[in-house]
Amino acid sequence: MNRKLIARVVGLILGIEALCMLPSLAIALFTRGTDILPFCWSILLSGAVSLALVCIRQDSTRLQTRDGFVAVALCWIFLGLFGALPYAFYGYSYADAVFETVSGFTTTGATIVAQPSVLPRGLQFWRALTQWMGGMGVLVMVLALLPSLGEGSVNLMKAESPGPISSKLRPKTSETARSLYIIYIALTLAETVLLTVAGMPVFDSLTTSFTTISTGGFSVRDASIAYYASEAINWIIVAFMFVSAVNFGALFEVQRGQWRGALKSEELRTYAVITVAAAGLISVDLILQLGKGVYESISQAVFQVCTLMTTTGYATADFDVWPYFSKSVLLLVMFIGGCAGSTAGGIKVSRLVILFKGLRRELRRILHTREVRPLTLEGARVDEGTVSSVSVFLFAYVVIMCLCAAVVSLDGVDLTTSLSAALTTISNVGPGFALIGPTCNFAFLSDLSKVVLTITMLLGRLEIMPLLVLLFPSVWKK
Amino acid sequence: MNRKLIARVVGLILGIEALCMLPSLAIALFTRGTDILPFCWSILLSGAVSLALVCIRQDSTRLQTRDGFVAVALCWIFLGLFGALPYAFYGYSYADAVFETVSGFTTTGATIVAQPSVLPRGLQFWRALTQWMGGMGVLVMVLALLPSLGEGSVNLMKAESPGPISSKLRPKTSETARSLYIIYIALTLAETVLLTVAGMPVFDSLTTSFTTISTGGFSVRDASIAYYASEAINWIIVAFMFVSAVNFGALFEVQRGQWRGALKSEELRTYAVITVAAAGLISVDLILQLGKGVYESISQAVFQVCTLMTTTGYATADFDVWPYFSKSVLLLVMFIGGCAGSTAGGIKVSRLVILFKGLRRELRRILHTREVRPLTLEGARVDEGTVSSVSVFLFAYVVIMCLCAAVVSLDGVDLTTSLSAALTTISNVGPGFALIGPTCNFAFLSDLSKVVLTITMLLGRLEIMPLLVLLFPSVWKK
Repeated sequence: MNRKLIARVVGLILGIEALCMLPSLAIALFTRGTDILPFCWSILLSGAVSLALVCIRQDSTRLQTRDGFVAVALCWIFLGLFGALPYAFYGYSYADAVFETVSGFTTTGATIVAQPSVLPRGLQFWRALTQWMGGMGVLVMVLALLPSLGEGSVNLMKAESPGPISSKLRPKTSETARSLYIIYIALTLAETVLLTVAGMPVFDSLTTSFTTISTGGFSVRDASIAYYASEAINWIIVAFMFVSAVNFGALFEVQRGQWRGALKSEELRTYAVITVAAAGLISVDLILQLGKGVYESISQAVFQVCTLMTTTGYATADFDVWPYFSKSVLLLVMFIGGCAGSTAGGIKVSRLVILFKGLRRELRRILHTREVRPLTLEGARVDEGTVSSVSVFLFAYVVIMCLCAAVVSLDGVDLTTSLSAALTTISNVGPGFALIGPTCNFAFLSDLSKVVLTITMLLGRLEIMPLLVLLFPSVWKK
Repeated sequence: MNRKLIARVVGLILGIEALCMLPSLAIALFTRGTDILPFCWSILLSGAVSLALVCIRQDSTRLQTRDGFVAVALCWIFLGLFGALPYAFYGYSYADAVFETVSGFTTTGATIVAQPSVLPRGLQFWRALTQWMGGMGVLVMVLALLPSLGEGSVNLMKAESPGPISSKLRPKTSETARSLYIIYIALTLAETVLLTVAGMPVFDSLTTSFTTISTGGFSVRDASIAYYASEAINWIIVAFMFVSAVNFGALFEVQRGQWRGALKSEELRTYAVITVAAAGLISVDLILQLGKGVYESISQAVFQVCTLMTTTGYATADFDVWPYFSKSVLLLVMFIGGCAGSTAGGIKVSRLVILFKGLRRELRRILHTREVRPLTLEGARVDEGTVSSVSVFLFAYVVIMCLCAAVVSLDGVDLTTSLSAALTTISNVGPGFALIGPTCNFAFLSDLSKVVLTITMLLGRLEIMPLLVLLFPSVWKK
């Protein structure tokens, strides 16, 4: 393992984090909030550790695959530990602060803050910004800014970017990272402008855009998006949530004018079909079982399906009081999540497609013993290694969910709460059902549960393997 | 597809079913029960259809792989439809009757009978006997009785026997089938004798043995095993449940005196470790959270872990009122189930072992890109095809569970009920949680839910593929 280079990467990341706290400090100074000192101390501490790590002398600049995984895992852990400082200095317990920060960076949106509206502005901004930084990947940001991080920096991107298929835009790592961030920034600006035009205050527009495009789900309002009570705002957010959970490779093609190629994407089509089908089923359920109006049902169903499937997690309606069938459908889309290579969580639509094709192939194998066609996705052959990786991923996902739910159940919460807590954190959604429903928060849980849920959020965001690799003793040998 | 041969196999199975109803008729006549006529009519109808099908002239006696799958699927469907006749003639609705019968043959043990103790003796016997017939496999029984069913009859056994690994005892299909049934009958007789000695009435001993060795879980008493209130009986049943969920290949080795080979089995060891670990965790939880005595806690924990992990489903305690952590552990062992090649349901321990090894290999692949060892189980190499079959199986299992739970939730039942109903039927356990807990039954559900749960039980028992194959239109072409 190239320890020194990994330490340097972690140092760089902490430096970026300190820099990203500066706007919050500025806001704190401008609004004379109670968060001035917390941000000063946090920036000083993070900056100092960053400097110490960056100054370590390097022998080699080569990052192997496993180094990439280890570096990404450690970076995310340190981001959480140091990003939590402003909350901790402000007064939250360190376990709560780390929970909130990791929930931010992993774009989960699960919160221990009962009333985000009473937080000082600087902290509100930092809370939204962590999601924006985490959405596209913090290391991808580093690669976009510093092209010459070393050989094999593609291994960093491989470990941080979600999804089983390699994106089409990969000739040069730093170029890819930059074009991803250009789309990301453009979407954020577009949403900010539209939301402001629709009547949202500018500060709210910017922070909401941060947490929409990253499919994070934090809001500066206690009632989340329901606070604005505006259909226009709801539909703008729906549109941007939907787009943000699309593979950024497809968005890149759209940006270059290749609409047709993007729209042919199997994953994109499946994603759209699932969204429409789930929203349709829930609309009918709401109309028939709750007797709501047709437009209201459709509007609420579309918003909640989009917000949970894209793993954003905003609330416009308390879906915890919806009929059980609707809740089951919502649980399913939370599990599936968005497209690979997007900012969304979940097991990803492309994995679902690969698994379904694997099932069909298995049945074909029984039917016509000899003739078995290879599995394809987006026209390209999926090799056996990928199929087995995808399956192993699903298995690990389910096992981690079960273990996490078992630990949370030690707090004496019911099965719906513990299971949905595990699902909502590993899928990086945010709210769950029952005691952690859209009108509740995670503050009442024990510290043990909070730590386990924090780890589960990281496992979900980094797609499990980078963190599990840390458990192998052989990784820590030179 | 060899339609005529398949029709003949179905005919044979119905004939066997009619013959198996004769003891129940005898009991009905002997006890002058209200079930004499129901059994007469059922035997006549099943016998007539059986005769008509068996008399179809055959062109070829070759059964291909897919013919085996189709034959097994159709046989089980017809077994359910005709086995339900005694209940239907006795007065139950046909949906209820089929639910109860399929729950019997699949050794699930979920019931719509509120008070089994008031059923006439003949029906009680039939209810237990369906589980005993289904446990080892009805087609395996045919193969044991009729060695000359045709070429490729191994394909019938392949499709009906559970688990991803082929048992070691397979040189000749009919011989294998016979040795399996010898062990099966020996275990049943041994348990009957021991239970009678421990003070259980003979009729109860026999029917309880039927449903223990098949890991079925039906009881002739309303309070299930709790009725006898005897520690000796509980521990006898625990021992036989545990043994019945062991791979019969290992039991075969034991029978031939090869203890060492059997005890070296990786699957058996993992199964034992999980049982002990789960029982240990629950014991501690019961002692600490409910304040029960140490012996009582251990005794109840061992019984419930065994009964749910072996997918039997007897009740000695109402585990629905246990702490949530204990319930989570119970849900996990219900999902896992027993060993492959046993009478138990669930995803099977050997699949779990293969998936864990697949996960470890995936991590190794990241760590040392070049050196990747092949996956092994019980000392033999597991080829890639098996690994991907296992993964696809897990995926299909989870998808079916989710869809089933969604349909059940249409009845307006809570998520714990709908999810545990789906899990308990696909894993062929029997009881679930909340509204379908160990002191409740499935009678209150809608017919739609009952039909879907019935199909889910069949999917679980036949390990999904045989039934899904029926959905391919190409199967139905000549």
